[in-house]
Amino acid sequence: MALIVQKYGGTSVGDPDRIRNVARRAIAARKQGYDVVVVVSAMSGETNRLLKLTRELSKRPSEREQDVVVSSGEQVTVGLVVLAIQEQKAKARSFLGHQVRILTDSAFANARIKSIDSERLFASLKRKEIAVVAGFQGIDEEGNITTLGRGGSDTTAVALAAVLHASACEIYTDVDGVYTTDPRICDRARKLDRVAYEEMLELASLGSKVLQIRSVEFAMKYKVPLWVKSSFSDDSGTLITEEDEAMENVLVSGIAVTRDEARFVVRNVPDKPGLAAKIFGTLAGLDIVVDVIVQTPAHDDKRTDLAFTVGRLDLEKTRDCLRKLARQIGTGKVEHEVDIAKVSIVGVGMRNHAGVAAKMFQVLADEGVNIRVISTSEIKVSCLIDEKYAELAVRALHTAFGLDAKPAS
Amino acid sequence: MALIVQKYGGTSVGDPDRIRNVARRAIAARKQGYDVVVVVSAMSGETNRLLKLTRELSKRPSEREQDVVVSSGEQVTVGLVVLAIQEQKAKARSFLGHQVRILTDSAFANARIKSIDSERLFASLKRKEIAVVAGFQGIDEEGNITTLGRGGSDTTAVALAAVLHASACEIYTDVDGVYTTDPRICDRARKLDRVAYEEMLELASLGSKVLQIRSVEFAMKYKVPLWVKSSFSDDSGTLITEEDEAMENVLVSGIAVTRDEARFVVRNVPDKPGLAAKIFGTLAGLDIVVDVIVQTPAHDDKRTDLAFTVGRLDLEKTRDCLRKLARQIGTGKVEHEVDIAKVSIVGVGMRNHAGVAAKMFQVLADEGVNIRVISTSEIKVSCLIDEKYAELAVRALHTAFGLDAKPAS
Repeated sequence: MALIVQKYGGTSVGDPDRIRNVARRAIAARKQGYDVVVVVSAMSGETNRLLKLTRELSKRPSEREQDVVVSSGEQVTVGLVVLAIQEQKAKARSFLGHQVRILTDSAFANARIKSIDSERLFASLKRKEIAVVAGFQGIDEEGNITTLGRGGSDTTAVALAAVLHASACEIYTDVDGVYTTDPRICDRARKLDRVAYEEMLELASLGSKVLQIRSVEFAMKYKVPLWVKSSFSDDSGTLITEEDEAMENVLVSGIAVTRDEARFVVRNVPDKPGLAAKIFGTLAGLDIVVDVIVQTPAHDDKRTDLAFTVGRLDLEKTRDCLRKLARQIGTGKVEHEVDIAKVSIVGVGMRNHAGVAAKMFQVLADEGVNIRVISTSEIKVSCLIDEKYAELAVRALHTAFGLDAKPAS
Repeated sequence: MALIVQKYGGTSVGDPDRIRNVARRAIAARKQGYDVVVVVSAMSGETNRLLKLTRELSKRPSEREQDVVVSSGEQVTVGLVVLAIQEQKAKARSFLGHQVRILTDSAFANARIKSIDSERLFASLKRKEIAVVAGFQGIDEEGNITTLGRGGSDTTAVALAAVLHASACEIYTDVDGVYTTDPRICDRARKLDRVAYEEMLELASLGSKVLQIRSVEFAMKYKVPLWVKSSFSDDSGTLITEEDEAMENVLVSGIAVTRDEARFVVRNVPDKPGLAAKIFGTLAGLDIVVDVIVQTPAHDDKRTDLAFTVGRLDLEKTRDCLRKLARQIGTGKVEHEVDIAKVSIVGVGMRNHAGVAAKMFQVLADEGVNIRVISTSEIKVSCLIDEKYAELAVRALHTAFGLDAKPAS
């Protein structure tokens, strides 16, 4: 019998009525003849409430204990979802991370799945039960509770779909699919019917918050067809899948934007092996996530400029660290600039087409938007611009690359 | 090194400040040179909030799933208590039922402990950690989460004290000990310094809600000295321990009262073996808890009257069941009466003294209180009376048996 994994996020299980709705959807899939595994997050607001409690008791809470506290949120939801399914006269059973069991490494608060036992889940499905699994949580070799990081329930769902050889993994959320860009910025944003894993990876990493990046990586690695759907409508959603020929005919699939970035430039870095590693290794050690990195070719004096962005919140920490490093290494000035946005165009079709980047620069130039830094990958072009132009840039690019929805007639 | 188990109830961990207070107390015991195991309940109100959620989703929630949901309450508390201890610069580690592991039978919602692994706890104590264990929860042979019933955290604490050979088990609550009677009824109620296990068992079963009965049984069986103390004061509390000579000189240690009982009489029950078993077996099958049972000697016609009490809430269910049974068995009328209270005097000293019961009856007679049913055990005399006389009876008995506190001078 074909098997599907359905994952419901926090807003989809936010209150008893919504939980009953989840039960109805799971039972409907079961009645269509599927074996059904449901993965749920904590009720919306619950994880934040629990995190707040830990912060009230400790300025730097132990991540082991924080995981014990926050994983209770999903524990509540699995029980409630099973009760709702049973109340609608279907069979169901809840599974926690240690019951499945979902074995992870011991990186508390950000653990990675190492293996999943499928035996108990298959036994449950064989008993005609809907198996309801707590997302976000696992257990390490010593029996400690671990969590997979924000959005980790997506990863749980995809990993289960891979291990159980599911025919699809459906991610239910409060939006009805993946859009060409953020609809709050651009009212002509259009829902995509299909998007390639690679594109979704770029879109997710560039600020589209629909899916956790790791879940997309997992889905791509194990070729799990991934649907993003709304739990509040019957729309068909967006299918994230392998690239196909139709996709290649589309140059740009989506436009992503991230704001609140800060840009740093370290001037006159000696062009010696190991210095970049030292700078970025030190920043990583301070848990500073570095985004776009650009290094210009060395000047005649064997020195180069190194530019990169960090989140606005890490500005002070990064500046202090870089000033110290600059003295040690002997670089020039450290400059920084806030109120920077990153606008990116993404599309697998770019691989086989020249001129996409040039078109992007022209569109921005036509709008009078100055480009500070450019960075490209095979299927993406990113430009750092002044944050105040972010919305204008997104809308102009959206139109220029033919993404606008047709006006309703 | 001597080991103590401290158990903190819901009000003692009701908010972050109170949790910090629990951390201070645990650390203080550690600094006095004890190995310390802390057992905690869910934050006050939390178990009820979770139960309410399950009731919103199901009229008759599956007890397996209900246990999954409600056990999350203790999971949150253990994590928070450990964070509070760590913030005060001591070492601590949390343990859930499945991590200890506390193995129970599979009677969800009311499971019994079968065994406890002490290995991980001892390893934790050896690392100089305060081990913080989730009360109320266990795990069965199949890895399902179970709970021990209301007040089950007391049982967890005493069972751990027994297994770990603790020198004492301290139960912290919002009252500062065990009283001669309910202070809300009798303002001359006096705190007891010591009370025997047997007395505490009778007091607990007779409506004193300080401790769960099973925890006292456990403590008696394994001879664990049990302290009841307030987490909000430094009073020495009450020690529950084995009977000693000093105790035997006290005729009555306490007076218990339960209200909201309903009394049933089944008239003219044929005096044949097996009929009482049939009646009470049927009631037990309906989850009706039967209290005082009195059977008068058979009349000449080989028929007898059977009287007993049930909780007021079970009145209708009991009546319907008895009417059916009466027809089957061929008894006389089934009568019932509500607004009944049970007043009991308890004391190990009674064993060796005649006349205690007679004195009780005289005290009640002097106050004009009519006794409906009398029931006695070795260390207890219970009388059913009209509920409206309950407080009067308690106060009169409290004075007559010399329990009144001396007035403050």
